[in-house]
Amino acid sequence: MIISMNLGKDSYDIALERACLAKAGELLDLNRKVMVVTDEGVPSIYSETILRQCGTGFLHRIPGGETSKSLQELERILLHMLENDFTRKDCVVAVGGGVVGDLAGFAASCYMRGIDFYNIPTTVLSQVDSSIGGKTAVNLGGVKNIAGSFYQPKKVLIDPDTLSTLPERQISAGLAEAVKMGLIADPALFALFETADPTAHLDEIIRASLMIKKQIVEQDVQEADVRRALNFGHTIGHGIESVTGLYHGECVALGMIPLCAEDVRTRLVPVLQKLQLPTEVRADRQHVYQAMLHDKKAAGGKLTVVYVESPGSFALCPTDPEDLKESIAMIVKEDPAL
Amino acid sequence: MIISMNLGKDSYDIALERACLAKAGELLDLNRKVMVVTDEGVPSIYSETILRQCGTGFLHRIPGGETSKSLQELERILLHMLENDFTRKDCVVAVGGGVVGDLAGFAASCYMRGIDFYNIPTTVLSQVDSSIGGKTAVNLGGVKNIAGSFYQPKKVLIDPDTLSTLPERQISAGLAEAVKMGLIADPALFALFETADPTAHLDEIIRASLMIKKQIVEQDVQEADVRRALNFGHTIGHGIESVTGLYHGECVALGMIPLCAEDVRTRLVPVLQKLQLPTEVRADRQHVYQAMLHDKKAAGGKLTVVYVESPGSFALCPTDPEDLKESIAMIVKEDPAL
Repeated sequence: MIISMNLGKDSYDIALERACLAKAGELLDLNRKVMVVTDEGVPSIYSETILRQCGTGFLHRIPGGETSKSLQELERILLHMLENDFTRKDCVVAVGGGVVGDLAGFAASCYMRGIDFYNIPTTVLSQVDSSIGGKTAVNLGGVKNIAGSFYQPKKVLIDPDTLSTLPERQISAGLAEAVKMGLIADPALFALFETADPTAHLDEIIRASLMIKKQIVEQDVQEADVRRALNFGHTIGHGIESVTGLYHGECVALGMIPLCAEDVRTRLVPVLQKLQLPTEVRADRQHVYQAMLHDKKAAGGKLTVVYVESPGSFALCPTDPEDLKESIAMIVKEDPAL
Repeated sequence: MIISMNLGKDSYDIALERACLAKAGELLDLNRKVMVVTDEGVPSIYSETILRQCGTGFLHRIPGGETSKSLQELERILLHMLENDFTRKDCVVAVGGGVVGDLAGFAASCYMRGIDFYNIPTTVLSQVDSSIGGKTAVNLGGVKNIAGSFYQPKKVLIDPDTLSTLPERQISAGLAEAVKMGLIADPALFALFETADPTAHLDEIIRASLMIKKQIVEQDVQEADVRRALNFGHTIGHGIESVTGLYHGECVALGMIPLCAEDVRTRLVPVLQKLQLPTEVRADRQHVYQAMLHDKKAAGGKLTVVYVESPGSFALCPTDPEDLKESIAMIVKEDPAL
């Protein structure tokens, strides 16, 4: 199926279809120089499948993990294009998860002030969330996504077949973002997590999540307003992510728990447990608190926190960061070893 | 006077007025955190004047010259903002020439995916040309402006009083861009250079140049088409700039000479001489040629060259780079020492 993102002159299509990687050459304009960016954790079969369909393909493989989202890695990609005489008419293709998409998208947005970018997400997290919406970024000074751009892809190809090679833990972490989508905007999607086996309904979950994200991003591309709802679970979640080794989706799972009504929480926790996502974590609460403040650059001011009163609706609440200490305490258990 | 750039939601005003630096606090919203970026070559009085009018001002001074247009210097500015907890609501102000504006604008466009940017150009070159139009950039791998963004300032303040501290050579180099504006779009502006003392008419030259640039940029922000006219003199010029120590404007002056009709050239050369701009240069022609190709990433393809048949009009001509060797020979004299 095709889902159209209606963003004026920046509009683009998302093709959601099993086995669509094999026909990327039909769906995308690859008959030019193409820089395929992927990471070491992505099975090389996916980037090879794309490269075979390129006019003149180049492979840029980055190390796996968040540390690759750096200005240094950005520079290496840009130089790789420069050395091969990429022009404004050439393009960049991301094949991988959120890290690859964020970095490659930023490279495409910078190179000669912007060349075409295609995103081919191969993880649940990137297929349900990060591959669309046009946010690109690198990390800096220990803060996630502090430098980047709003830059829309020309097209997104989502092939759920790629999830067959994904470790279970990564599937669960990605599904946490889909649970989030259900809680803020789609009670039926949330109910599916309660009543069915989510891994048997991946296509449906991806489709429903994309529809929610589409509607929100179309209203507010630059995150001035309603798009901030997508940060549900992320305020405390980013704080936890900074001080633990947990995956992004796992931290979002944790971050949602304190910021919903009691009866929502009673339904949410079993869903997270069913997905084998954490519902509490051992860490130093003060460290989490400080990392959260640093991440949000909220020193002295208020934080806007997303709160879910009932599945399918949300509120943006300006909150004194101090008031979040109790929320943190609900999910972060002090390590007795500290 | 106020010149409005009409670019839809990215519209902004240019205030052109002597002594306007002293009332920047009225003209700009500086009642917040402000990162003032300037360079060592800019008299510190200008940045101090701005800092005095800021809610919470910070000074970031970069080394003078093109080498500061690097991803490394960009990172230092971003970290400087991060360390001081800049939020999306804070801003960046450039005080200086084209290098400062290009780098600070890129930093503003990246930080948290874009915060407000004000440009206060203090050189002729930046006042007549680079401060408006929303091009930001850094250099990479020896190629100028290879990474950057299209990002419009919120406002531009042009105070011709700042030119009183500018060395004569820099004034002349900046005026070369104004000569260019006259040749491609305004015969009266070109005639002014022929008949009058340009340094006695700086306000008029700045105003006329801004009006031309405004009209061109409003038609074609992203340089898909007519905006490429502004590259008149730049194709060979950038090649010369890469292999000599000449100023950007001096290279543009040289680059215009071969790419106009004979009778235009007969008028152009005396104008350049009057401004004490070079009309020929000693360098290795092959080096200039290679640097030009590298800069334009034209390997194998054609270059679009801007050609002026008569003052006030231009043509965009797809050209075989080989055909430019004769043009290069017209202005580049082989160094007998080589």
